[in-house]
Amino acid sequence: MEEFKITPWEVEGKVDYKNLIEKFGLKEIDDKLLERLKKITKDLHVLIRRKYFFAHRDLEIVLDEYEKKKGFFLYTGRGPSGPMHIGHLIPFLFTKWLQEKFKVNVYIELTDDEKFLEPKRNLTLEETKKWSYENILDIIAVGFDPERTFIFQDTEYIKNMYPLALKIAKKINFSTAKAVFGFTNETNIGLIFFPSLEIAPTFFEEKICLIPAAVDQDPFWRLQRDVAEKLGKRKSAQIHSKFLPPLTGIEGKMSASKPETAIYLSDNEKTVREKIYKHAFSGGQPTVELHRKLGGNPEIDVSFQWLKILFEEDDKKIKKIEEDYRSGKLLTGELKDMLIEKIVKFLEKHNEKRREARDLVNVFKYEGQLAKEMWKRIHQ
Amino acid sequence: MEEFKITPWEVEGKVDYKNLIEKFGLKEIDDKLLERLKKITKDLHVLIRRKYFFAHRDLEIVLDEYEKKKGFFLYTGRGPSGPMHIGHLIPFLFTKWLQEKFKVNVYIELTDDEKFLEPKRNLTLEETKKWSYENILDIIAVGFDPERTFIFQDTEYIKNMYPLALKIAKKINFSTAKAVFGFTNETNIGLIFFPSLEIAPTFFEEKICLIPAAVDQDPFWRLQRDVAEKLGKRKSAQIHSKFLPPLTGIEGKMSASKPETAIYLSDNEKTVREKIYKHAFSGGQPTVELHRKLGGNPEIDVSFQWLKILFEEDDKKIKKIEEDYRSGKLLTGELKDMLIEKIVKFLEKHNEKRREARDLVNVFKYEGQLAKEMWKRIHQ
Repeated sequence: MEEFKITPWEVEGKVDYKNLIEKFGLKEIDDKLLERLKKITKDLHVLIRRKYFFAHRDLEIVLDEYEKKKGFFLYTGRGPSGPMHIGHLIPFLFTKWLQEKFKVNVYIELTDDEKFLEPKRNLTLEETKKWSYENILDIIAVGFDPERTFIFQDTEYIKNMYPLALKIAKKINFSTAKAVFGFTNETNIGLIFFPSLEIAPTFFEEKICLIPAAVDQDPFWRLQRDVAEKLGKRKSAQIHSKFLPPLTGIEGKMSASKPETAIYLSDNEKTVREKIYKHAFSGGQPTVELHRKLGGNPEIDVSFQWLKILFEEDDKKIKKIEEDYRSGKLLTGELKDMLIEKIVKFLEKHNEKRREARDLVNVFKYEGQLAKEMWKRIHQ
Repeated sequence: MEEFKITPWEVEGKVDYKNLIEKFGLKEIDDKLLERLKKITKDLHVLIRRKYFFAHRDLEIVLDEYEKKKGFFLYTGRGPSGPMHIGHLIPFLFTKWLQEKFKVNVYIELTDDEKFLEPKRNLTLEETKKWSYENILDIIAVGFDPERTFIFQDTEYIKNMYPLALKIAKKINFSTAKAVFGFTNETNIGLIFFPSLEIAPTFFEEKICLIPAAVDQDPFWRLQRDVAEKLGKRKSAQIHSKFLPPLTGIEGKMSASKPETAIYLSDNEKTVREKIYKHAFSGGQPTVELHRKLGGNPEIDVSFQWLKILFEEDDKKIKKIEEDYRSGKLLTGELKDMLIEKIVKFLEKHNEKRREARDLVNVFKYEGQLAKEMWKRIHQ
């Protein structure tokens, strides 16, 4: 338990996901649940098929409600503190897949207030607003349904959420916030209030809310479930992802302060190539001869892990890559080349869509069908 | 120091105002300052002439700025937790006089969020919104300049104030809020954030802000001055009033939970008469004979104090009343009749203006010149 630390604002050490399931009171996503999901969706997205989304709360209830035609809605978000890297995009890729399969509404919150309030980041509000715009372009590029998706920024949408946030805030005392988030006497009173605004969107509809997000956001959802009960509202369901391992090794989370640990969505081909060649932690042997003889270790090889998590969707191919790497047939350099090719293609396509996204910002924020409805509502 | 307790949410015991000046680091309003004020205003409102507004911070700077044609602005407010009584109206009467004399802008905040968040009050947000509307009618009835006065409710104006409130909140940690307001681990995270929203309007203009308010609000202003320095903004000036003594005796503050302690603005003539006859604490003697012989004590006689504070503006008349009461010439019943007559007239006039106020709510909140400007601004 001393080996790693997880809060919404800090992830350190090698995360023990099995341990987290127990510690946070989550349920593992098992094959039975995947079978049930597949009956509805026909196929399974690589991110859940390979259990990068590894745990959940009440996903069964969400599927029950869907089958009873009561429906559900999706909610996720982004803290706009800087440019997005591939790890940041993952919950959105999966959320988009869920939207496509279930034809449900998606709410995406940009917490420009939170990222301003976090003392370590030292960002101005003007900067977090600017990053909100930039990040929204990346989010739109993922391909959400513009009529069923509402993207909102806290400082812009606050008036519509404030009454609901007040009701939530009244049910959370400092003692609880301290225990859940690790707040101290030095925490500023803005950050202390902020959880009300991350919880508020879970009540945007009467239907049950399903939140696909990285597991470090779980403290918010545990608190949400407690508050929901007190307010006579619905407890949210969650589906939790792991963290994409940093290029530099499988411990911790990619970090904005160490650009060599991540591939940014704006990195060009040359940068991608350099970063992966130079920094991608290898599970291979020191020399080609030794590698051919002893083989590599895909478990700790970041290039392999990235291929497995997201970039090589073909199950047969990834299995062959794993075997060949383990046997020594496949060299680290060759593995890196495979990953580079996949990522370069991915980013090319992403950035093409990102350019088109400029014309869609107003649709997702204000003019789409769901957005228009949401601006008319003061949430209570 | 053990005898009384003052926070923005609680006043208990007989307040020692001299002691408060020292404890809060205020300055007394002395005759020299009154002379200076009178040179500008020509006359002095009874509330300051008789030193019901008894202390200040930086009022000299406000007058300096006025004389240098740099100007200033006024800010005060109301917690909309129920119907207003005469004590609640007093800061508004004085603020209106200042506006008239100095021709300056007035900002009036209705903290419907705060009154919802205060756990003891047990009010719904719908109730504090309703009371906001009712209280605004009483405030408008005081006679503010509709083009130079902006009345706003936190839940409505939050979007315009939120960026500024965040900047304030980032400069206040829990430790400080705890020390200034007496927050505990049980305080909810909404109330902990709230001071940011009471402080925000002090920065609505670049000019210096003068706040006429009861002295129990002083913790907010001490914190404001601290935060202003950190943000490179202007420290606000204040002018502090005492509390109107409850009918039932000169200790503490009138209380909504004890209706017999106060005259409500909606009380009819019969109720006013009954309350004053029955409850107004008397400084007189038990029998007429003893009273004629020993005389009464105007210091503790609430009817006399109310006449002196507000209702008998004629200095010669109040002096004669005091002498006659002290000598025994004037009986308690006669004193009460004088007060009743004054209050009944006051309320008649007030309620006539209050009825007309219904047509002015939109002007003060949205359509007046200042209001229109304020809705266009996002305060930074």
